[in-house]
Amino acid sequence: MSPKKAVVLISGGLDSRTTLAIAQNEGYVCHALSFDYGQRHKAELQAANKIAMVCDVPHHLVTINIGSLFTGSALTDITVDVPAYTGTAEIPVTYVPARNSVFLSIALGFAEVIEAYDIFIGVSAIDYSHYPDCRPAYISAFRQMANLATKSGVEGREVNIHTPLIKMSKAETILTGLELGVDYGQTISCYQADDSGRACGYCDSCTLRKKGFTEAHIPDPTRYR
Amino acid sequence: MSPKKAVVLISGGLDSRTTLAIAQNEGYVCHALSFDYGQRHKAELQAANKIAMVCDVPHHLVTINIGSLFTGSALTDITVDVPAYTGTAEIPVTYVPARNSVFLSIALGFAEVIEAYDIFIGVSAIDYSHYPDCRPAYISAFRQMANLATKSGVEGREVNIHTPLIKMSKAETILTGLELGVDYGQTISCYQADDSGRACGYCDSCTLRKKGFTEAHIPDPTRYR
Repeated sequence: MSPKKAVVLISGGLDSRTTLAIAQNEGYVCHALSFDYGQRHKAELQAANKIAMVCDVPHHLVTINIGSLFTGSALTDITVDVPAYTGTAEIPVTYVPARNSVFLSIALGFAEVIEAYDIFIGVSAIDYSHYPDCRPAYISAFRQMANLATKSGVEGREVNIHTPLIKMSKAETILTGLELGVDYGQTISCYQADDSGRACGYCDSCTLRKKGFTEAHIPDPTRYR
Repeated sequence: MSPKKAVVLISGGLDSRTTLAIAQNEGYVCHALSFDYGQRHKAELQAANKIAMVCDVPHHLVTINIGSLFTGSALTDITVDVPAYTGTAEIPVTYVPARNSVFLSIALGFAEVIEAYDIFIGVSAIDYSHYPDCRPAYISAFRQMANLATKSGVEGREVNIHTPLIKMSKAETILTGLELGVDYGQTISCYQADDSGRACGYCDSCTLRKKGFTEAHIPDPTRYR
């Protein structure tokens, strides 16, 4: 029997890098998918490309020109500043409406094309930015929708949405990745990384990442500016 | 109270044109959304643009470069011929995996940005190409997913997915549109319309459209090549 294929969403950040390592460790032949959606932190896509090379997986970049439509999000609208981490449970201004639905839907279509029935996404509902589309209930609803949406679904070959990090703290994610040989120095998590990939150190994503390295008692390899 | 906004997906074809007419007739202030996803029948986008002008609604074109990834579909892969209508209940080769999920997800995000809670899509499960993502069960699952995906959903402002044509035959759709003043000569349904918008006359989409005009006893305004 040939090994199972998987589509793995990779942003270039810490979580998706760990997710790719987990998928490979589970024996999946992985196809990495990244998205240029007009995000402020384009440097993450260079990191994604490097990660795909290091992991020896094909890397597909999908460009979607929604940046100009999705005004009001600090990730797609340069007139909105990326705020410092506050630690509240509010959904922050870095929220991009329906982002994971767009990404997962394209992954769903691509998975059907290559006859993969497993999609991996590195969402977590523990140390996260309170985006609604990172929660288990959302993922479960997406999966139900997905299996009604596709030819393979109606023919009984259902797709699984794997979220190996969903209950992991950032420290647990880091320790899991390190066991699998991940070099986190190659990842970029910052919501406003500069063109050379250096991080701000204070946005939600930087703060949660820093906290993860601290709690895991691992030196932080992030390049800050 | 200001009139309610809606996002209406328009392809340039007969169904979405009728759907836009219905949404406007129901008093919605409509924002039209179309997609360039590498489809063979680009002429439909010119029709969509013209329809938006005629209906005096803003028209947003989203470009997604999935054409090269979505091989094997006759609509996105020019090495696959568009077949003639067969009348079977099989899902045909013109099926584009997860297409409506991609379109509706982008519409969902855009709706949240403009504070619209109504999305209209012209799917029908009567005279259709047996695409799984045109069926009521799919639409219902998408809606459930959508309301877990978004900030507005978790805050209790749920989005509705309107499918006014879902139980209409093509003839009923045409008669409904004509009552609302639609000029179907401006629409392009053919899966392989040429650059000047002329239809092949034999693909699934042309065949169902022709049948609709015949059954409605209305002269067919389609330009065939």
